[in-house]
Amino acid sequence: MQYVPAVPGPRRVCIVGAGPVGSLAAIYFAQRGWWVDLYEARPDMRRPATTTTATANPAQSQRSINLALSVRGLSALHQTGLGLDAEIMDLAIPMRGRMIHDLAGQQTSQVYSVFGYCINSVDRAGLNIKLLDSVEAFGNVRIHFNHALQTCDLDRREATFMNKSTGEHLTVQADLIVGADGSYSTCRRQLMRRTRMDYTQEYITHGYRELTIPPLENEDGSTDFRMNRNHLHIWPRHTFMMIALPNLDQSFTCTLFMPYEKFEEITTEAELVAFFETFFPDALPLMGRDRLCVDFFTNPRGSLMSVKCHPYHYEDKMVIIGDAAHSMVPFYGQGMNCGFEDVEVLFSILDQHDVVAKTTGDGDCDRDGDLAQALAEYTEVRHRDAVAICDLAMVNYIEMRSLVTSRRYLLRKTIEGYLHRWFPRWVVPLYTMVSFSRTPYHRAILQHDRQTRWLGYGWLAVTVMAVTGLACVMRRCKM
Amino acid sequence: MQYVPAVPGPRRVCIVGAGPVGSLAAIYFAQRGWWVDLYEARPDMRRPATTTTATANPAQSQRSINLALSVRGLSALHQTGLGLDAEIMDLAIPMRGRMIHDLAGQQTSQVYSVFGYCINSVDRAGLNIKLLDSVEAFGNVRIHFNHALQTCDLDRREATFMNKSTGEHLTVQADLIVGADGSYSTCRRQLMRRTRMDYTQEYITHGYRELTIPPLENEDGSTDFRMNRNHLHIWPRHTFMMIALPNLDQSFTCTLFMPYEKFEEITTEAELVAFFETFFPDALPLMGRDRLCVDFFTNPRGSLMSVKCHPYHYEDKMVIIGDAAHSMVPFYGQGMNCGFEDVEVLFSILDQHDVVAKTTGDGDCDRDGDLAQALAEYTEVRHRDAVAICDLAMVNYIEMRSLVTSRRYLLRKTIEGYLHRWFPRWVVPLYTMVSFSRTPYHRAILQHDRQTRWLGYGWLAVTVMAVTGLACVMRRCKM
Repeated sequence: MQYVPAVPGPRRVCIVGAGPVGSLAAIYFAQRGWWVDLYEARPDMRRPATTTTATANPAQSQRSINLALSVRGLSALHQTGLGLDAEIMDLAIPMRGRMIHDLAGQQTSQVYSVFGYCINSVDRAGLNIKLLDSVEAFGNVRIHFNHALQTCDLDRREATFMNKSTGEHLTVQADLIVGADGSYSTCRRQLMRRTRMDYTQEYITHGYRELTIPPLENEDGSTDFRMNRNHLHIWPRHTFMMIALPNLDQSFTCTLFMPYEKFEEITTEAELVAFFETFFPDALPLMGRDRLCVDFFTNPRGSLMSVKCHPYHYEDKMVIIGDAAHSMVPFYGQGMNCGFEDVEVLFSILDQHDVVAKTTGDGDCDRDGDLAQALAEYTEVRHRDAVAICDLAMVNYIEMRSLVTSRRYLLRKTIEGYLHRWFPRWVVPLYTMVSFSRTPYHRAILQHDRQTRWLGYGWLAVTVMAVTGLACVMRRCKM
Repeated sequence: MQYVPAVPGPRRVCIVGAGPVGSLAAIYFAQRGWWVDLYEARPDMRRPATTTTATANPAQSQRSINLALSVRGLSALHQTGLGLDAEIMDLAIPMRGRMIHDLAGQQTSQVYSVFGYCINSVDRAGLNIKLLDSVEAFGNVRIHFNHALQTCDLDRREATFMNKSTGEHLTVQADLIVGADGSYSTCRRQLMRRTRMDYTQEYITHGYRELTIPPLENEDGSTDFRMNRNHLHIWPRHTFMMIALPNLDQSFTCTLFMPYEKFEEITTEAELVAFFETFFPDALPLMGRDRLCVDFFTNPRGSLMSVKCHPYHYEDKMVIIGDAAHSMVPFYGQGMNCGFEDVEVLFSILDQHDVVAKTTGDGDCDRDGDLAQALAEYTEVRHRDAVAICDLAMVNYIEMRSLVTSRRYLLRKTIEGYLHRWFPRWVVPLYTMVSFSRTPYHRAILQHDRQTRWLGYGWLAVTVMAVTGLACVMRRCKM
């Protein structure tokens, strides 16, 4: 076991997990002069050999390929001042609304915003690679791939990793350990051993499987999208649904969400095709039977879990961010956006508390007392928002798979849309607040509840006025 | 690593944890002809050397010394047909009610049942030793102390233990693995890896510390209890409380429950004594200042966690029982009772499904298909009750530390008491259903809610009748 002692001088941070959130955090820390060590259990995804490994790893390949990047994520990227948001938008396909596919294959567009705001379909790997490249441009960051966290001694500020290439164990010391190691976070488990953590994990009774709609190959050899590229396509079927997001290579990645029993009922290719002919008749020819059967019976079935916990920190020694702190079901497309916003919120609090990487010059590592307080504030501020978006994501599944076809829902959307256009500061639809603003999630819910109440009153007033008017008219006619 | 293969013939069960619940389960399995291996991480508590070790182990010494045994626990002990309930009652001190100590030291008794039913203060170690002795009397049980579960391969029905005396690892195979390894269960963690487990752990913001009221030493050398022995003593102080349970040696074990901050405010002996003089003036002289100071500043501070999870089983391979499945705060005195009832319920279901230890004689271990189904039924039946009692225990903290002094609460108790005496089948107080009956916990809550509603209607009827009567009287007077 090799032992790396703390180096006096700039503060050291050890970030566990070099996914999008961990990488972005590394950039923020590096920009503030911290000495950053970024550890990742998987191999470097930028090396060609890795792609195979990653695909062979079921945990990895179970993850959704597409992410929906929106304002919160872009804001956190923008704050780096490196133009990362613009660079990543080059890889994105804007989606301006939902395209609802009914049982007859008819398509109806429902825009996300009356002002034309879009969410953006981004390739997870492409985004992650961009961020890793940016991280590596800093002189004060070292990335260690193939290093899996084994355990932490938080009171000694130590983390022990296993080098998966050599099997060696390595213990490192850091002023702060940042856990960005995803839903099944080892950091969170370590944090649980030192804090009285309230923790909830909840699986929904639906699983998912990814399928593909390949690009259209024209006769002249050029290719094209098989459906409108600027929409998130939804086949809402009440108790289950399929969605499709566009990729840069002009294919669509479809995700079929269904109760586990329903997945288990389909055991043969004939059953699968019959199921698609009944419920997704327009998607079937776009996918192609053979491709569908291969995808359905080969791709792993993923499960969907929601995780909430509290606190996110331990003294001034550890903090967890991203999915490690709050894992949500994917139905609001906010998982990564919320993780990126974690980083922005964390640093706005650290900056407020003047927690900076201090180099005293006399070789003494200066830890100011504010870090613990800043992390405690981070927990308090962020927890209510993380809980709010976890809950919203859960509810949005019902909206996506069922409500989008309801007249009542569409009427409200329409009225809310008009009101939003006329009074853009006073009436803001929930989806707009969540996806196209940085209104804290919990406040978005409060405002939405207030709006719902006022819409109810308005509706009542309109009804009363209409009835009174009608009564007056009828009275006059009699007179 | 030593490998013990499955032996054909009788079914093998591997029980993890030889606490009260694990030991009782071992007796039930042994009586049905299973081959039982009972593993316990700690040394044999019956050996004199162990007592020291146990006390030195903070995890162990943090556990409450007293348990409140009531009908559910006694029923499960009785079902063994070994007279265990009677034997254990010999070690118990019945408590017929709560003794409320007010700020002036005045004591008021509130009986638990109008029919004189009692809960019983039992020494945890004494109870466990009795059960271990009973377990050892069976020829088909082996107890392995100092064996800590490391990991399970559930699909291969294997569990790996570390022998803490030798450091050796031992992998054993069993038809069924039963996890009875307490709140921080390793079995539950293993189960979590194979099932989509919904899991919630929640700490309350209050901790606890155990204190002692020693026996009274008379001048003739005899000893006596310093307070009424047949009560659970409570000092309710709204935001915190102290309770005391009698021990066989005529001492009382007191437990002080308080918010963590309040514990932290008390740093010196003078502060501690002043605190007790203000809030527990009658308890202070009974404890003695010196003893109090030693206990308070030496005894570990415990934390209180509630754990709920679902499912409790994996196929026909593992089931968790007791605190491993549902850990509750101690305010209803049902933790062990519920754990014992788990065993009774589990076996009533196994027996219904005719899951027996089959010896086919031809050397082939006969696993009937019903075990998986029985365990699934166990999860469904037991989960709602475990959740119900976890919730009730949480709510009862408010009752104990605050409500017991409220007039409204006492009025309801009195009315309910009379109604229960007159209509014992129709009106049953919640405490009676929980502690003095085997009514499933979730049904007790439903019935209590119904009673609350009817009591409300009754109250309204009485008021209406009174007002009408008064009106009539006044009218007559006028006439």
